Amino acid sequence: MSGQVLDRVDHPPTGVDEDPGGFDLRAPDGTRYRVDLTTEVLDPHNPLLAGHLAARRVVAFVSPTVDRLHGHRLRAYLEAHTGPGQWTLHVIRTGEHHKTLAAAERVCALAKADGLDRHGVMLAVGGGIVADVVGFAASIYARGVRYVKVNTTLVGQVDVGVGVKTGVNALQTKNMFGAYHPAHASLNDPAFLRTLPHREIRCGLAEIVKMAVILDGDLFRTLEEHPDAFRRPGGDGELETYVLRTSMRLMMEELCPNLQEHELARLVDFGHTFSPVVETAGGHRLEHGEAVAVDMALSAHLARLLGLADEETCARVVGLLRRIGLPVFDPGTCTPGLMTQALRASWQRRGRKLHLVVPTTIGKAAFVRELEDVPGDVLEAALRDLAADGERGDA
Amino acid sequence: MSGQVLDRVDHPPTGVDEDPGGFDLRAPDGTRYRVDLTTEVLDPHNPLLAGHLAARRVVAFVSPTVDRLHGHRLRAYLEAHTGPGQWTLHVIRTGEHHKTLAAAERVCALAKADGLDRHGVMLAVGGGIVADVVGFAASIYARGVRYVKVNTTLVGQVDVGVGVKTGVNALQTKNMFGAYHPAHASLNDPAFLRTLPHREIRCGLAEIVKMAVILDGDLFRTLEEHPDAFRRPGGDGELETYVLRTSMRLMMEELCPNLQEHELARLVDFGHTFSPVVETAGGHRLEHGEAVAVDMALSAHLARLLGLADEETCARVVGLLRRIGLPVFDPGTCTPGLMTQALRASWQRRGRKLHLVVPTTIGKAAFVRELEDVPGDVLEAALRDLAADGERGDA
Repeated sequence: MSGQVLDRVDHPPTGVDEDPGGFDLRAPDGTRYRVDLTTEVLDPHNPLLAGHLAARRVVAFVSPTVDRLHGHRLRAYLEAHTGPGQWTLHVIRTGEHHKTLAAAERVCALAKADGLDRHGVMLAVGGGIVADVVGFAASIYARGVRYVKVNTTLVGQVDVGVGVKTGVNALQTKNMFGAYHPAHASLNDPAFLRTLPHREIRCGLAEIVKMAVILDGDLFRTLEEHPDAFRRPGGDGELETYVLRTSMRLMMEELCPNLQEHELARLVDFGHTFSPVVETAGGHRLEHGEAVAVDMALSAHLARLLGLADEETCARVVGLLRRIGLPVFDPGTCTPGLMTQALRASWQRRGRKLHLVVPTTIGKAAFVRELEDVPGDVLEAALRDLAADGERGDA
Repeated sequence: MSGQVLDRVDHPPTGVDEDPGGFDLRAPDGTRYRVDLTTEVLDPHNPLLAGHLAARRVVAFVSPTVDRLHGHRLRAYLEAHTGPGQWTLHVIRTGEHHKTLAAAERVCALAKADGLDRHGVMLAVGGGIVADVVGFAASIYARGVRYVKVNTTLVGQVDVGVGVKTGVNALQTKNMFGAYHPAHASLNDPAFLRTLPHREIRCGLAEIVKMAVILDGDLFRTLEEHPDAFRRPGGDGELETYVLRTSMRLMMEELCPNLQEHELARLVDFGHTFSPVVETAGGHRLEHGEAVAVDMALSAHLARLLGLADEETCARVVGLLRRIGLPVFDPGTCTPGLMTQALRASWQRRGRKLHLVVPTTIGKAAFVRELEDVPGDVLEAALRDLAADGERGDA
């Protein structure tokens, strides 16, 4: 088995500097950006966001939900810190089907009508869709303008918000057009998470479990003790801050040496081999994070059946996902036919190598390199075992 | 006067390495790319282009003119070097009004239909429009694919082809959407220039005169001796190779420290302050290079009237442009009203500084920093003198 698998080559966690207020990333290719961790980012006395806007012309874009919950505070903040006539705000539609080139073009047209020149700032306040669309618009507007994002969802804060990818869907393909365009600054404020629906919290936790499984046994154990993190009534927030900060750091350290994804074997692709098909073939009935959970559970079973992980590791991964309330099986899409298609599509995408990420123990992972290393009967057995897990009922 | 003007701070010409086959650029921001100078690039025995395509899937885009003159050789070259089924070729429309986001989208759709993935290559063979549109498409396709360009026009070979700017027009604005996206390789072959219309040659010479005036007295004197360069019957091509190579090197050295144009005072903006208005307000009756020639002549007169250059310098700049056959005055647009508008628009674009580039002698230039340093009466006098130059009849 060991010939098929390359254990992770540990790289030193250089390139990401942590301080009490956040993280600075300096990539080997020269890219630099900062992700801030702050509280009450829209409090008029919090100078952090204003500092990144740097007295420039600001055009802000928000989701309808953000507008409803936080729009008044955002407007007051911009008015206080940039002055009248120096800012405008637009509400843009969210949902995967609004992540289009036309949406990015509209963002640019609104900014142009508001007089934004290449020295101005586009500000995105919202979740992944707003960040993806506005980030892409900022990357092409006048060949690139300053882009600042305030991430209001858990997925945004631990995943989209700490990376450099922007993009829109086109030509029947997710993220067909896009850019690796780092935000000038990315701001995470846990206070936003208090108003999130629980389903969105669970989706964010799926990405956090991903980082824990492949890189951090301590974080995994913390989640096992507190599968209700971010949904607990009361609490001083210390646990949430630890989980958030740890996830942000792990993700940034993983991304740092490979920001533009030239290296196609990526540990952070754990949970992202089968999930695109679970999402799309399922007609987006499952959210992205839910499909990632199903993928991680399937990958854990494969690791067990291939002799790469023991029973307990597999059971702990599946068990934690279930206790969080995430699905681990999707009867409509978890078929040998569709999952074989998913393996082939990933193989194609990753330069004709499979690079399937599987846990070897809690906190460590490995790559299954070749398509033929996942025989059809093993895949079928894994799907059968997964179906049994799923039938035990949702947590 | 000296308070208004900052003489050029010479930067060492590091960052651009010259070898017999071309130039390697290494920018301080980490960007690297190569511009090759070769002959008979489409000869099946010339391995240069094939090397840059590196046995990858290729989708090629050409202008109708390139298709007519060189299409058969390009197809044969691709067939010989990538194999059947590994390449496709599409003809795209040229002209400034086809430089649109829809055109870039169409390039991407054609590439997608041809099966191009993120490991493939987009190849552009043509002039500035093809390079701008395909380069921008390549920058957004799957967050960026390898992009190789073969420059077939003189402007392409000395200006667009050696830089990193791509873009399309939108929202009534030139290059509204774009990216700083270096081509993996850019290939210049003087053999293409033999089939160019003389008007296009003259437009390329305008950009070459620009580099000579601001940076290289020897190149300027060579052009004075041979204003018919690239249009002479016969000749061994030695003169043309010297002019081409020198212009490429000068341009790359100027661009290198400031690839993304963070510094808004750019010597290569000589000829590019008044010309946008000459082009657009004139309804694109003048080509870009012709408008640049008018702008350089006007800037030379301003330098003389402001006491920054002597009479002879001004006369030599205007004289060389006329002997090349370029216009130095455009009665329809060279009015005090429109040229004042042009100054204001440049001031706005350059961060509320004028940064007007004017020659101080042949081979050296300076910036006029502030809008008020070009008083209305001086502008009017310069336009009067220019009109008199223009009335002497075209060369």
